[in-house]
Parts: sequence; structure tokens; C-alpha cells
Amino acid sequence: MSDTDVAEQPSDMLYSSASRRTFFKRAAATAIAGGALVACSDSDAQKKLAGKADASGGTTAPNPAPLSTAASAEAMDRMHEAGIKAFPAKTEGKGNQLMQPVMDKGVKVYDITAEAVKWETEPGKKVEAWAYNGQVPGPQIRVREGDKVRLVLHNRLTESTAIHFHGLELPNNMDGVPFITQPPVKPGESFTYEFTAPIGNHGSHMYHSHHNAAKQVGLGLLGAFIVEPRRPSASERADIDYVMILNDGMHGYTLNGKGFPATEPIVAKMGQKVRVRFMNEGMMIHPMHLHGMHMTVIAKDGWMQPAPWKCDTLNVAPGERWDVIVDCNNPGTWAFHCHILPHAESDHGMFGMVTALIVA
Amino acid sequence: MSDTDVAEQPSDMLYSSASRRTFFKRAAATAIAGGALVACSDSDAQKKLAGKADASGGTTAPNPAPLSTAASAEAMDRMHEAGIKAFPAKTEGKGNQLMQPVMDKGVKVYDITAEAVKWETEPGKKVEAWAYNGQVPGPQIRVREGDKVRLVLHNRLTESTAIHFHGLELPNNMDGVPFITQPPVKPGESFTYEFTAPIGNHGSHMYHSHHNAAKQVGLGLLGAFIVEPRRPSASERADIDYVMILNDGMHGYTLNGKGFPATEPIVAKMGQKVRVRFMNEGMMIHPMHLHGMHMTVIAKDGWMQPAPWKCDTLNVAPGERWDVIVDCNNPGTWAFHCHILPHAESDHGMFGMVTALIVA
Amino acid sequence: MSDTDVAEQPSDMLYSSASRRTFFKRAAATAIAGGALVACSDSDAQKKLAGKADASGGTTAPNPAPLSTAASAEAMDRMHEAGIKAFPAKTEGKGNQLMQPVMDKGVKVYDITAEAVKWETEPGKKVEAWAYNGQVPGPQIRVREGDKVRLVLHNRLTESTAIHFHGLELPNNMDGVPFITQPPVKPGESFTYEFTAPIGNHGSHMYHSHHNAAKQVGLGLLGAFIVEPRRPSASERADIDYVMILNDGMHGYTLNGKGFPATEPIVAKMGQKVRVRFMNEGMMIHPMHLHGMHMTVIAKDGWMQPAPWKCDTLNVAPGERWDVIVDCNNPGTWAFHCHILPHAESDHGMFGMVTALIVA
Repeated sequence: MSDTDVAEQPSDMLYSSASRRTFFKRAAATAIAGGALVACSDSDAQKKLAGKADASGGTTAPNPAPLSTAASAEAMDRMHEAGIKAFPAKTEGKGNQLMQPVMDKGVKVYDITAEAVKWETEPGKKVEAWAYNGQVPGPQIRVREGDKVRLVLHNRLTESTAIHFHGLELPNNMDGVPFITQPPVKPGESFTYEFTAPIGNHGSHMYHSHHNAAKQVGLGLLGAFIVEPRRPSASERADIDYVMILNDGMHGYTLNGKGFPATEPIVAKMGQKVRVRFMNEGMMIHPMHLHGMHMTVIAKDGWMQPAPWKCDTLNVAPGERWDVIVDCNNPGTWAFHCHILPHAESDHGMFGMVTALIVA
Repeated sequence: MSDTDVAEQPSDMLYSSASRRTFFKRAAATAIAGGALVACSDSDAQKKLAGKADASGGTTAPNPAPLSTAASAEAMDRMHEAGIKAFPAKTEGKGNQLMQPVMDKGVKVYDITAEAVKWETEPGKKVEAWAYNGQVPGPQIRVREGDKVRLVLHNRLTESTAIHFHGLELPNNMDGVPFITQPPVKPGESFTYEFTAPIGNHGSHMYHSHHNAAKQVGLGLLGAFIVEPRRPSASERADIDYVMILNDGMHGYTLNGKGFPATEPIVAKMGQKVRVRFMNEGMMIHPMHLHGMHMTVIAKDGWMQPAPWKCDTLNVAPGERWDVIVDCNNPGTWAFHCHILPHAESDHGMFGMVTALIVA
Repeated sequence: MSDTDVAEQPSDMLYSSASRRTFFKRAAATAIAGGALVACSDSDAQKKLAGKADASGGTTAPNPAPLSTAASAEAMDRMHEAGIKAFPAKTEGKGNQLMQPVMDKGVKVYDITAEAVKWETEPGKKVEAWAYNGQVPGPQIRVREGDKVRLVLHNRLTESTAIHFHGLELPNNMDGVPFITQPPVKPGESFTYEFTAPIGNHGSHMYHSHHNAAKQVGLGLLGAFIVEPRRPSASERADIDYVMILNDGMHGYTLNGKGFPATEPIVAKMGQKVRVRFMNEGMMIHPMHLHGMHMTVIAKDGWMQPAPWKCDTLNVAPGERWDVIVDCNNPGTWAFHCHILPHAESDHGMFGMVTALIVA
């Protein structure tokens, strides 16, 4: 969150919105008693909880302690509370939206324009971004193995660029590396990539700039490129398929282009399976930790693992993709965040790489 | 080690202690000839070694070389030697001590008080710490799957806090995330966590603050929470069960709250199996390297791996836990350290994330 | 690459060399039409490509865009092009060369001298290095399990040193840790390591300094120590066996002691299998990404994985070794680089941890 000192102000002035309140009410309403969201997002609820046991045994009780610090502790808590009450906060723009291709004689055609935009990563924080079709991350592309694909890149940036299809095993001249496999696509020019999504090479892949890439990818020229298998294996079947792109560059610590509280929660029903496709487009590792339930790891860089394995904290390195399945069998609102704590929380509250999995 | 220039002083003034000498003598005495600790921890021993082959063929012989630098090389070596001779150095306080619960009608009750303490990380280096029951890491909690557990957190800090049981799949209101699953536990207040250790969710877990956590965990509010299985699998049987908590925050690079030479060696007999439970509570990866023997990786975040696999350097990311078995079949004192070398050695000698596995 | 502004100068003055041109011509000549290296490494080729579709559908077409920035975009592209045209650039010195032992009554003897040298990491960039036998990385040592080995270390440095055989399970007094397993080897002295390469402990190992190691390894005192198995398993058979040592210390980001464009390409024929042995001797992770083909991971720290698994981006942490097999079934010149992009590209072009796998 920003450095603004929210403690001095009514939290509602900064953070509240009707849609957010509705969101939490819905989650709370459908939650199962005894194991779900504790509706402690306002001070009254806290006071009611304090001093008596709840259904599962949680109690708060008075205890002698220093009093002089109560005011500053209270101020810090108000900032933390305000951030969480604001979640999911409204911001302008949404990245990673599924893109529908135009069909041209059996070819799926995607027009992708790279240009500079302003991008709101969290409420009130607008940054310079270089975006595909105005989105950070760029539009989510989903095809099936064997599909014919044409992607036309239009460069409206001030620098040359090119697109590398990270994880796709394409003919060399479609690989997107200027001066090695193609000329750079200069400002004002276009370049057409055309290929068949390779059979057997399905899974969670990415597309991003491969020219001056430390800067261009850092500014937002990246997106998910998912190749569906013709015959999904039993272990990858899921009710919800969620792409989570991690980044840590000039836009701060983000999940799908937004920092908490503007990140997007994943909402599932009890008993549903959620597939999360982690993709790291940043410069640092991010060990993603899910509360309340474990993750079963099924694929690495699109390739099925020889045997699925379980964890609750998955270390995702730059350029890697990891696919996991979460069996949503524990109701409630569960924190889901990078466990490098300075990527997720400051003394002003949670920020950056934090979201929630809500099982309701 | 500290920046103090020990080269100018008799090394014994800073580092030596009767207990340390005894320790090394015991290790040496029980070591098996030909493969064990070379008793080169004092200058006489070195001189005896120099110039003649030992049992396994090591020799030192004179060779023409620059002489002008001999004095400074000698000074550096004395600092390195002093650090190693001091190992394991005595410091005040020991973290990660197994805590015995109080039984209350079949419930294992743990009273945990969070408060500020001074913590000695290495001889003479005292830091501000926030500790559970005065320990960094906090007391080691060990229960069995299916056990009823009550943990009463008393907050004697100047900030609110809360405990998250990292890796345990608990009812949501026991998850310890202020404003999402419970109110913050304010200075002077207490909060009771009560739950059944979930069946099937055994293994190496952790408990730590989840409020202002980058600071609070960094200052020491963390500990091991181990859930024993009812029926351990054959692959996890071990003679020695050792928890090694890695940290890298405000207290420097530490193993179980201490930096070398104040870290604790693991001492095993030939033929014993040692289980090491690595837990990373820091902000950086730590690839832990064992000399002389490999590690067989059996579990990740408490979950058994589908097939054990071997390594000698295991990359442990923040929030991760990895369990390994070492089959102690090679006698001697073996360095065991983070292989990010600036976390383990400076020109003043070894420091930080270094310990030893002694097979005697 | 260096900070020199190459845009103002004819790129040939800085980068071109006859051998480099020959290299690219050979690669292009043997490449298979439609999927191989696009010969766009000079401006004429780009102009020919611009505006018309190539065999696989790539096209460039004019498109309205800002013109004022064309000059600076062009200048940046010239720098990028110059770097790639220079690859593989000639530099003085080559590390990681296979060392032939001297045989002494059935013992393989390696004389290794540690001394300071000047080392050219990329054209014109000479750095201070501490090298084994004048090479960074030091000479590649390859023995077979069960071989008798004698390595005589001669210290011609200004500091004491010692060699640790990282990954080899040796008798303790051969482990190379001063004051724990041996005295330091002082300037002007020698030390003889003698051991049998342990049966069953074959694979990709390393040798490096274990004294003041953050500095000494950072300056270059490191090398590959490979132990061949007596009976290689089917999964590890390869036509080309390539060691790739990653480093990130005082010499910048390097692969086998060189930064792009002075790194060495791997050249294979269609249908060949290439084994890459990644070894990280640095202080940071390096997720190595191969374009165009996946890698099948077969071993970790020399130990075969229980089941091979596939990826295109492999995270290699300090001290780790990972062995992979690439089945070269996709013709062309494929970028092969660390996917922490600031380790691989700046606005001056590619540098550091970048090389290519050329399948021709």
C-alpha cells in the first residue's frame, strides 16, 4: 500500500466501496459456521469477540501489559484493518483477460498492440506501463494443441520490440529474438507470428518481449499463453482454472498486475477443485504460500510431473510456471501470498503479493 | 563473527572455553582412524601435519612463493582458526527447546508469551528480539495427529500480534490472520487457539506471527510446530530428529537463532540416521550444503515426497520446510552450511549459517 | 556488455572478427530451411525481410507510429545487433578445459596451481582473477568411480587456501576445510589430496576453495569435478556432454568464466542428445531458460532423480548441480540464458549469462 498515513483519517474515506462490502457479505453469508470467515472487519465485531470463546475455542482475555504504547498499536491496527476491508479494491483496468481470437480460414488470429499506458496497480497509484492491448498482464491467450495461430504484433512503442513465446517449441524464425531469429519490430511496424501450437507441448506458457527485455517485460509486455491438451489427464481436471502471474519490477510486487488490496480473490465452492497456474515474470523468486489447504503440484513449465506432490509453499523462480490443484475442502477466507514477508506486509499493513482463496 | 580484529589478541582471550576444548576432544577421541576429525585446531598440530603425509595421503610441502604477504595471510588464518576453535561457542539463551504441554482433560495446553528480550546470537553480540517464552526460535511444539491442542498466546509486546500455524489445515477462525480470521491480539491481551491436529496433515510445520509479520517474524516470533504421524513410514525412521530453523533478518544469518560459532553441532554415532527438518523463516533462499554425506529428501512442507531423492545441497526458500535423512556412514566433523558463501564466511572467518554434523 | 556507447561507432570496430563471421556462416549453411537461423544479422537482411512474409509466415508491415523516437530506437537496435553479431566473441583465455592426468602407478595425478591472473571476461574487459592453472573456471577434472586420484595443490596466492571436493564423499581429512579437516595451505606451500573416487558417488561435482571462500571462489578458485559412472544408465547417454558453470561475483554474470558475447555456444546436430551439467558457483539463483526445446532433468548433485522430469527453465541455486538432457530435434540457433533478465540484457543489448544452443 502507499505511504499515505491512513491512521489519521476515517478508514472509509480511503478504502471503502459498496462493491467491497457486498463482496465480503456474500462470502460471509455463504460460509459455513464454525470454520469460515470471522466477520471481524469492523471494530464492533472485534469487541464482541474479545473476552469470550468463539465456536472453535478462540478467546481473548485481559492481561497486564504496557499501556503507553496502546495508541500507536491501535493506529497500526487501523491501517492493517483498512487495507483488508478495502480488499478487493477497485482500480482502473484489468489485465490477463481471456482474449477471443478472430477466425480466419481455420486460423485463430490475435491482434496485439504494444503501447504505453497509465496503469493503476492499487487505488490511486498510477504507474507508467508498456502494455499489450492496454492490459498488464496482456490478454490471456488460450488455444488447443494443434491449433493454427496467427499473432500480429503492432509496435506503437518508442523502442523496437519482439515477442518470444516462452515454453512453446516453435520453428526458429517464430522464436522472437531480434537479430537471432528475426529483425526487431521497429516503432510503427508490425510483425506476424504464425505457427501451429505444437502437439504434446501443451500447458502453461507465456508470451513476452525479448528485446531490451529487462525493461520491456518489467514495464508490462508479458502475458499468459496457455495451450490446452486435446485429452486432459485426470490429475489436471479442475472446476476453476486460474492464472496467477507474479511480477516484481517497476510496478512493485504484483499479482496479475495489481498489488493488494487491488488483487483479485479466487472464489470457489466447497468441494470444487481450483487449478492455479503460477507464472513468474519478475526478477526474484516468490515462494507462494496458501493457508488452510495444500496444493498438489501437477506440472512444471507445462510438462506434467512424473508424480504429483504436495506442498503449501511453492517456490516460483523467474521464467518458471508451476501448475497446482487445490481441493477446496476447508471453508473460509484464506490468505494466499508470497512468503518473502517484505513482499507482502509492511507496518502499514498487507500490500503487494497478497490475495485470498475464498471457499464458501 | 563480529568485526573485532582478533588477530591482534591472543585467540584464547576471545574464544576459548573449557567446554569447547572438551567437546572437540570427545569428538576426536571417538573418531575412527583414517577418516575422522584431523586434530588441527591448534598450531602445534598443524606443524606436525605440515610436511608429512597423513594416513590418507594428505601432505604439505614447501614451495617457492611470495613472502611479503605471509604476515597478513597468517593474521587472517589466526582469525579463521579462532572462530573454529570457539565452536560451539557458549552464548546466553537457547531457542527451539522442546516444550512439555500441561494436560487439561485430554487437551495439550501450551502457554506462549510474546515479549521483547535481549538475545545473544553469538558471543558478545546481543540484539533486540521479540521472543515466544524468551526463546528465539520459540519453544518447539510437538504433538501427534489427532491430538487436542490449546495454545494460549499472551501478548506482552508493544504491538498487536497473532499466531498463524503455517502448514496446519485448521478451521478458518484458528488461522491467525488479523482482520481476516480473528481480531488482532492487542498489547496486554491474550488469545486462545484451540484445535485438533488434523489427521493426515502431520509433518514439519511452523507457528509464527501473521501481524506486521515482516518485522515481527524478523525479530523472532516464530517456532517449529511438528505433528508426528500415528504411523511413521519406514522412510522417515531416524535415530536423531533435528529441527534447523534458518533466518536472515535483523539478527543476521542464523541457525536456530544463533550465528557461528554459537551454532549447535549435530552429533551422531556411526550408523545412525539423522532426520533434519529444515525450516526457512527468513527472506532469502538458503541452499544448505552438507559435507561428506548426502541427504535423502523425504518430505516437503510436511508432505511425503512420492519418491525420496538425494542431494548434498538443498535449496530452502522462505516458508518452506524440507525433511531429509542423513545416513551417518562417514566418520568425522563435517561442515554443514548455507552455500551462499557470504552467508557463511568473511575474511574474518566463518560466521552465520554454519554448523557441523559430527559422526563419531 | 560494458558501458561503452557503441552506438556512435561502427559496430565492426568493436565486435567483428573473422572467426565469428565464419561461425555464423557455418551455422546458417547447415541449418534446415524453414526452421533455422534467420540470417538477419546485418541490416540488408532485415530490409529484405521487412514487409514480406518469410517461409513460416513472419511478416513486417508499415504501421502508423511516433517518428520522433526512431533515431534513438535505431541506435539501441544497433547496439543489440552488434552484441549478437560479435557472438561468439574471441577473448583471451579459456576456462573449464578438460585436464589430462599424469599416471603414477595407477594413480591419476593432477597438479593444480592457484595464482592470480588477469582474466578477460568479455572483449576488452580484463579483471583480476584467482585461477587454478590460469583458467576460470579451473581445469575440468574427469575420473571414473573407483579411480585413484591425487591432486596436488600449489598455493601461489597471497592468502592461505584449501580445496573442498563439493559433492564427493571422501575421508574426512580430504574434505578441505581449514582448521576442521586440515591446516590451511599457506602461501608458497603445497598440499596433496589423495583418495579413491567413491563407488556410487558419481556425477557432476565441483572442487573449490573452502578458505575465505566468499572471496576466493568469487575470484575464480573453482572447477568441475566429474565422476563418470562405471555403468551409465540409459537415461544419461548423450552425444555431447557440456559443463556450464554459473557465476555472479566480482567478474560479473558469467557462464564458464565469460560474459556474452564471449560465451561459448553449444553446437549439436539434429537428432543428437546434449547433456548439460549446470553448476552454480555464485551467490544467487539462476533460472536457466532454453528456447525451442525442453530439458529433461535426470540428476541433482550427481544423484539420479527417481524419475526424470521436463522443464524449459531450471532454477539452479548456489552449490547445486543439475544434469539435463536436451533432445536436439528443433533446428536453429536457440537463446539459452538466465531468466533473471537483468542478468542477461540491458538497454545496450544482451550481456552476461547468455549463450546459444545451435542445432544445425
